[in-house]
Amino acid sequence: MSKGAATRQTILTHAAGLASQVGLTGLTIGGLADDLRLSKSGLFAHFRSKEALQVEVLEHAAARFTDQVVRPALQKRRGVPRMRALFERWLAWEQAEVLPGGCVFVAAASELDDRPGPVRDALVTLQRQWVDVLARSFRYGIEERQFRGDADPEQFAQDLYGIMLAYHHHARLLADPLAERRARRAFRRLLEDARR
Amino acid sequence: MSKGAATRQTILTHAAGLASQVGLTGLTIGGLADDLRLSKSGLFAHFRSKEALQVEVLEHAAARFTDQVVRPALQKRRGVPRMRALFERWLAWEQAEVLPGGCVFVAAASELDDRPGPVRDALVTLQRQWVDVLARSFRYGIEERQFRGDADPEQFAQDLYGIMLAYHHHARLLADPLAERRARRAFRRLLEDARR
Repeated sequence: MSKGAATRQTILTHAAGLASQVGLTGLTIGGLADDLRLSKSGLFAHFRSKEALQVEVLEHAAARFTDQVVRPALQKRRGVPRMRALFERWLAWEQAEVLPGGCVFVAAASELDDRPGPVRDALVTLQRQWVDVLARSFRYGIEERQFRGDADPEQFAQDLYGIMLAYHHHARLLADPLAERRARRAFRRLLEDARR
Repeated sequence: MSKGAATRQTILTHAAGLASQVGLTGLTIGGLADDLRLSKSGLFAHFRSKEALQVEVLEHAAARFTDQVVRPALQKRRGVPRMRALFERWLAWEQAEVLPGGCVFVAAASELDDRPGPVRDALVTLQRQWVDVLARSFRYGIEERQFRGDADPEQFAQDLYGIMLAYHHHARLLADPLAERRARRAFRRLLEDARR
């Protein structure tokens, strides 16, 4: 990796952590330059605009998400083991120290849902890809006859999303120490229901 | 209602609708003054600071939520009818035209979860009250023997929260036309599971 590319990664990693707390619209090139002791003009050279920076932060976070959640889970056996790995790794991602405010996509979702533009478009594309991974993984489980033939993969994906969003809400906003235990119980119930 | 109180209500209703789209931190006294063709100094007289305005917007929205969701639902018979009314009215609230960006609390939750201060404190208090209404209503249903004795009211409340957050996410961000149908299906399943 060239020095320029390494600096870019450092900036994006820091920016993603910050965005998990203050939101993508809370990021400023000046603020990042101060945090990282870089010149503001140097940061502008890396990212021409605030919008370009925001899109790159999302894509950077998505690449990490693929590395840490999707790819290892897809190495698990289809069906229950793979769904469990997707859930467990998603939860670990949400709790990772590099994202002190939790999942950057959760923060961005309600921040950007009413703000049309290229940043929202990038987020929607990434979120659809993730929902598709969840639904497709579930569908493989049906094909393997581990899940009921009449189960709906898109329903499973939306329900699983809800478990994670409620965990984020109860743990981060309400500081509820039982939020994680409940999320795990809800996930077990969702899987059991699909296996009946 | 005095003229001052009526103006205050007009300002808060508009501000709540705006906050559902741009977030509470996106509200500015200057912007509201422009929208409503009021003088900036007049708005400052109503709300001494941006923070005071944000807290009042939350409390205003919570009062409307109590009127439109909680109070009518609590008039329904305990157990299944009441839980259904809470769910249906919550969904209608989320879809109401006065909140073009959806539930203002959902928007505020991920916006404020990492921003300590009086606005976050106000939001947490209001959200805990709502989660308590859900859990308590479920508990009455257990006492009436409509729900299983071993069911966990706090689990039910978190699971129901997840259904609504996932609906918000899929409908508003991903523009998924089936999001509502899935939310209803998930709620029916949650109720059925509690009745087994």
